[in-house]
Amino acid sequence: MVKFVSEDETQRLISHEAAFEPVRQALVAAASGDARVFPAVIARASEPQNTFSLKSGSTADLAGLKVGSFWPGNPAKGLPRHNSTIFLIDQDNGRIGAVIEASAVNAYRTAAADAVAAKALARPDSETLAVFGAGHQALYECVALARVLPLKRVLVVARDPAKAQRFAARLAERAGGPAVRVAEAEDACRAADVVVTATPSRAPLFDAGWIRPGTHVAGMGSDARGKQELPPGLFARARLFCDLPSQSVEIGEFQHVRDEIDRGALTLTAIGDVLEGRAPGRASADDITVFDSSGIALQDLYIGRFLLAAASEGRGVAA
Amino acid sequence: MVKFVSEDETQRLISHEAAFEPVRQALVAAASGDARVFPAVIARASEPQNTFSLKSGSTADLAGLKVGSFWPGNPAKGLPRHNSTIFLIDQDNGRIGAVIEASAVNAYRTAAADAVAAKALARPDSETLAVFGAGHQALYECVALARVLPLKRVLVVARDPAKAQRFAARLAERAGGPAVRVAEAEDACRAADVVVTATPSRAPLFDAGWIRPGTHVAGMGSDARGKQELPPGLFARARLFCDLPSQSVEIGEFQHVRDEIDRGALTLTAIGDVLEGRAPGRASADDITVFDSSGIALQDLYIGRFLLAAASEGRGVAA
Repeated sequence: MVKFVSEDETQRLISHEAAFEPVRQALVAAASGDARVFPAVIARASEPQNTFSLKSGSTADLAGLKVGSFWPGNPAKGLPRHNSTIFLIDQDNGRIGAVIEASAVNAYRTAAADAVAAKALARPDSETLAVFGAGHQALYECVALARVLPLKRVLVVARDPAKAQRFAARLAERAGGPAVRVAEAEDACRAADVVVTATPSRAPLFDAGWIRPGTHVAGMGSDARGKQELPPGLFARARLFCDLPSQSVEIGEFQHVRDEIDRGALTLTAIGDVLEGRAPGRASADDITVFDSSGIALQDLYIGRFLLAAASEGRGVAA
Repeated sequence: MVKFVSEDETQRLISHEAAFEPVRQALVAAASGDARVFPAVIARASEPQNTFSLKSGSTADLAGLKVGSFWPGNPAKGLPRHNSTIFLIDQDNGRIGAVIEASAVNAYRTAAADAVAAKALARPDSETLAVFGAGHQALYECVALARVLPLKRVLVVARDPAKAQRFAARLAERAGGPAVRVAEAEDACRAADVVVTATPSRAPLFDAGWIRPGTHVAGMGSDARGKQELPPGLFARARLFCDLPSQSVEIGEFQHVRDEIDRGALTLTAIGDVLEGRAPGRASADDITVFDSSGIALQDLYIGRFLLAAASEGRGVAA
């Protein structure tokens, strides 16, 4: 019997806080040595502009995949461009055990990795956030960070001034406490305790020299070859962390310093090892910490399991 | 609303004949130039002996994937080792449109490619079938071939004599008309009008010299690097066909003569072009024809669409 959780239901069940624990578990699993992430498939659908992706993984007690899709014409029909569905494979018999529609969930899941890492790595008194990007994901990143840090202000950096203003207004409403204003990249970086990037950039968004000692920098946008948001010059001055080192050096921010990492000139630590106390995180208030999220299927599997359990508790699961 | 078709229902809906037309459509689509098969993912589940695979594709009007799993401990629990589920992506909006449990369907779908190709390529008066292999899939291949050719006898070649005898008895019961007996490889080949191989072999199963003019040879077992059932020495004397040339030279039987194909010394034709009359098949009663099935996700998508439509017609589809 396949269990099914609908998009309507997962939208009711998800929240920033709800996503933190399953994503923390996924990051810990990713560092455990008993977790695997398989090569992503990027596929073209019937129409050339429509694409879908298959991202799969397994841990000691979970296996499955997420099918993501990108239909750029959807907004014209009042539908979201991105859709996601999580499939859990029953480890007792190999059959598909659960189908979980998780389109709205996806932004929470990605932002949760940022928040869990920032809680572990950023200075606990971090008050100023600089955000690069003014899209849907950037909004979720800022709101999630505001739940784990005592933010007083958010400085928004985006190329399109009108879009930046609209984003700032929406964020002020959603984040509650912090003051939000549009800023230039250099001013924002020089003032920030935390910098988060959530863009599709293919070149560094700021100068390494603009980052103060003590800052935490989170690169959320690099998830493919050729993508880049952070200046590699920053890395030699910083402590480096990521969700999954083997993937981060392939498609994440650290693809651009893979040689240095391979030969030991730079050290990259899985954040799960920090969360479990197996590796040091920030050692002093002057450390610069960098976290790269390349996005791992394990986050989807753990979020899927949480949603399935929450749905089963609250009401019957359609089959 | 995700449509769901259960294993119970697809087992009721599937038959050899039912699989022929969707698989024919898939083979035609594969040859059309507007169809794509994406790299297969072979994944390990929580327990190291359990594995699952993701096979995806798209055509002008279908896109989706099949998740297959292999749980070797299942028979001890009275469950099949292999399970398959087909997912169709709604091309209007990118959401998962249908989930179709298709474990029992899988053997019919693979055998249907063999039957559709044999009907196009074998001599219409083919009476003697030699089959290499005595497993589940070999049984389905023989039964499907008996539906499209006037077979009078089947010669079973397998390494384990006891297994070969059990297989022959089961086949005699299932196939209806033809006489079935166990035979040696050389005798079987020399007598055969059609030879079909359905084994996990990694080396040729017979000598090229044992194949008579006019024979049709179908290699069904090669679906990974290193697998091999047919003697490459046969190919220079034969007309060569397959489901999808780009995949057949990667993981199918023709991986072993890829150089010869690349430089034009051997010519490989997609069977879909023959089915549509765009390429010649057998030109004379003395031709040797060879068909390699490496197995393509498109077969699953078309079978899935057929099952979904059949389920919707007959009775309500659970959602």
